[in-house]
Amino acid sequence: MAASSSSSSYIFLILLFVILCVEPSQTKSIYLPRNNFQSSLLVNKHEKTKMPFKVHYFPQILDHFTFLPKSSKVFYQKYLINDQYWNKDGGGPIFVYTGNEGNIDWFAVNTGFMFDIAPKFNALLVFIEHRFYGDSMPFGNNSYKSAKTLGYLNSQQALADYAVLIRSLKQNISSESSPVVVFGGSYGGMLAAWFRLKYPHIAIGAVASSAPILHFDKITPRSSFYDAVSQDFKEASLNCYEVIKGSWAELDALSTHEDGLIEVSKLFRTCKGLHSVYSARDWLWEAFVYTAMVNYPTEANFMMPLPAYPVEEMCKIIDGLPKGASRLSKAFAAASLYYNYTQTEKCFNLEGGTDAHGLHGWDWQACTEMVMPMTCSNESMFPPTSYSYKEFAQDCKKRYGVEPRPHWITTEYGGYRIEQVLKKFGSNMIFSNGMQDPWSRGGVLKNLSASIVALVTQKGAHHVDFRSETKNDPDWLIMQRKQEVAIIQNWLDEYYKDLKQN
Amino acid sequence: MAASSSSSSYIFLILLFVILCVEPSQTKSIYLPRNNFQSSLLVNKHEKTKMPFKVHYFPQILDHFTFLPKSSKVFYQKYLINDQYWNKDGGGPIFVYTGNEGNIDWFAVNTGFMFDIAPKFNALLVFIEHRFYGDSMPFGNNSYKSAKTLGYLNSQQALADYAVLIRSLKQNISSESSPVVVFGGSYGGMLAAWFRLKYPHIAIGAVASSAPILHFDKITPRSSFYDAVSQDFKEASLNCYEVIKGSWAELDALSTHEDGLIEVSKLFRTCKGLHSVYSARDWLWEAFVYTAMVNYPTEANFMMPLPAYPVEEMCKIIDGLPKGASRLSKAFAAASLYYNYTQTEKCFNLEGGTDAHGLHGWDWQACTEMVMPMTCSNESMFPPTSYSYKEFAQDCKKRYGVEPRPHWITTEYGGYRIEQVLKKFGSNMIFSNGMQDPWSRGGVLKNLSASIVALVTQKGAHHVDFRSETKNDPDWLIMQRKQEVAIIQNWLDEYYKDLKQN
Repeated sequence: MAASSSSSSYIFLILLFVILCVEPSQTKSIYLPRNNFQSSLLVNKHEKTKMPFKVHYFPQILDHFTFLPKSSKVFYQKYLINDQYWNKDGGGPIFVYTGNEGNIDWFAVNTGFMFDIAPKFNALLVFIEHRFYGDSMPFGNNSYKSAKTLGYLNSQQALADYAVLIRSLKQNISSESSPVVVFGGSYGGMLAAWFRLKYPHIAIGAVASSAPILHFDKITPRSSFYDAVSQDFKEASLNCYEVIKGSWAELDALSTHEDGLIEVSKLFRTCKGLHSVYSARDWLWEAFVYTAMVNYPTEANFMMPLPAYPVEEMCKIIDGLPKGASRLSKAFAAASLYYNYTQTEKCFNLEGGTDAHGLHGWDWQACTEMVMPMTCSNESMFPPTSYSYKEFAQDCKKRYGVEPRPHWITTEYGGYRIEQVLKKFGSNMIFSNGMQDPWSRGGVLKNLSASIVALVTQKGAHHVDFRSETKNDPDWLIMQRKQEVAIIQNWLDEYYKDLKQN
Repeated sequence: MAASSSSSSYIFLILLFVILCVEPSQTKSIYLPRNNFQSSLLVNKHEKTKMPFKVHYFPQILDHFTFLPKSSKVFYQKYLINDQYWNKDGGGPIFVYTGNEGNIDWFAVNTGFMFDIAPKFNALLVFIEHRFYGDSMPFGNNSYKSAKTLGYLNSQQALADYAVLIRSLKQNISSESSPVVVFGGSYGGMLAAWFRLKYPHIAIGAVASSAPILHFDKITPRSSFYDAVSQDFKEASLNCYEVIKGSWAELDALSTHEDGLIEVSKLFRTCKGLHSVYSARDWLWEAFVYTAMVNYPTEANFMMPLPAYPVEEMCKIIDGLPKGASRLSKAFAAASLYYNYTQTEKCFNLEGGTDAHGLHGWDWQACTEMVMPMTCSNESMFPPTSYSYKEFAQDCKKRYGVEPRPHWITTEYGGYRIEQVLKKFGSNMIFSNGMQDPWSRGGVLKNLSASIVALVTQKGAHHVDFRSETKNDPDWLIMQRKQEVAIIQNWLDEYYKDLKQN
């Protein structure tokens, strides 16, 4: 079996780095190999069969914020329910996962935390799929066709979907007074936090794991993401960091050789001859970035099967190779851990995605409202890049026929003073972040008030707290989850206290 | 000069009572005479010349919540600026009126309170017009053409307009750190309160005068509005209340006469013969409802020129007429005060509006999201009516081709538990209400927390606190405004204290 260069649907990151850090002139050729969304969905469909959920479809309204004749068109939004632990009459809460950019089954599988704590809380579990992902396609197979259909894909519509669905669900199951807590990881964590801000009458609290809500406009320094990836590798081994940092120039040099493509294909053990050296660059890049994100303390299979602390493992590979070997060959060997930890690959497919449509949701979202500018600084282990909003916007305009709205997210949800605003006017939120995760740099990293709490772990990675508990979990992770449970319990206690008084 | 039956643009009320309290079978014939929106705008355009404002137009985006190709269409939103009292460097705040359903000039003229307090605060005054009203027409003369254009008219889009405009304005005048306080009366007060809830990062506080935010779904009893109108008249004189209550049957009896229309035309001194007895009914109804709303303690000219405490004056007229006179003739005499206080009318036009389009904004809003069901109880002085959502929805569907979304407002902004939610999660809001105003019954009438304050006056009417001060203002009104000033000052003090600390 040959490993494709991105067999997970972790689009959130993929597209950001593709769009925003690589020079704009190169974005176009880079997109396609990465659009493996459809294939990953197929993988997820298999996972579905194992899931302890009932699948439901909610007749959702297409456009909550206009009343045009076509706004009231109904589409079927998928959601998953597990009521095996629910004790409604005993005051059990409703735990809702606010789905992000992918198939909801995949998020359900990878948010074992909610399952693990459901029995303690007697909670009903609900996972709602984000519109335009998975099976929740407002225009069926035509959903990604153009801006005329994709135009309905954005975060405000998604939040309104959740509000309408939750209200209706509570009415249908006669549990209007059951408290709702929303959970989300990554973009889903942003949605959970924003939902709590905008719909405090629907959710009594939000657990937002690895939610980079400060990654817009210039709130977070633009180079911080790639600096953080680099920091992970540097901490593991200075030599490792330097080898990777030096490997790009060797790849560039090869690209000028007459037989450069052949040499690179050989070095990277590609199944087919490469069409572009950039494919090798992206393949490496992706491996390092993803591995930093999922630098989990235990063996895990979120993006790809990987050992515990995979960044350290990659660096061990690099440090263990003979001094004379080229930096590029060392980088390749390290990246192979990401693509082939299971040792089942005989060769690698660096090019060619399987998404026949050539479009998918996050790509659109990044070109409209989710504008998170990023650069690579001289200190990072990646080739330095600058950011040109103009070129980015031109590219989006060319691809979709729409202009990005780069200041909209901070206008709608709060910008530079968002932390002060949360401190004063928000409440009942947990922002959990692991500093191994480069997204943590755009997260809320300090307590803002008694009820807006930042849980930061130095050794944590991308929403590691949301993963199922394992017998190998380190103490800091066990402790973090315990804190989350205690805080949620406080919210519920307070809710029921208030309810009695009113 | 002949007085038209509704020469003000106070559509908010007009349409609610037309749509929701009169039997649905009658709604259609009743609409047209009331659609005098355009004529009232002409009146307002004259007022404009006297206004101490500079007129500006902001390039506003058509649809904030989708990214369809046409969503980014720009229209020009009118706003008024007065900077004569502003001391930006001295910490002067920005006071923004969140325009409601009419020409912004009219609201500016009738919100003298903001002018009166601007010097004390060194405040910049900004009045922003609501989309689809006045000059802020996204599709020019075609804006009211059909649901395809009107579909963009709703409260969420309006709030987003205000957010985008305020952010841009602050940037343009280099006053990013100036605190913004939003003000609004009636529907504008609902917008101010909701703006504070949804955009706490943009407005540090909201003064919501006579804002019936609890008038949705079944939060407020459906008969409360007309019961409150009736209560005003009953308090002025029991006989007055009974005369009006009895007048409708006399009108109904006349309508069955062969020469009924002629008799009614004669009795009501109409300029032209009537086509329907219902016109007389509406004419009376409107006079009583509006007079209750604007039962101000001083002579005023908001809807129409009226004396101080006009309900009492109406009842004096009724009580002063000979016992033998018919109830209907007494009701007519009382209503004449509303239409002819200046004694310049020789005859009355009870039929025929001047709105050539036959459509206007609030009518649409009431048929989409602003669904506030009302009935007339047996205890009211109006003919008892029930409410059928089904018929209401059918009528809206027939007229506009869209379905109302009767639960959307409470989903988006909070419903049954909204007061608890405000108490816990809101802050810095003033809800002022006068109990003479029937809309007060859907308002927030008790303090919810230290910073969500209800200022209720027993003798106050529809946003009386927002009117310019006069030398005849009663003590309770002077006191109410003083409290508002003190609370706003607290918000500003706190804001600057926080700013220093961060």
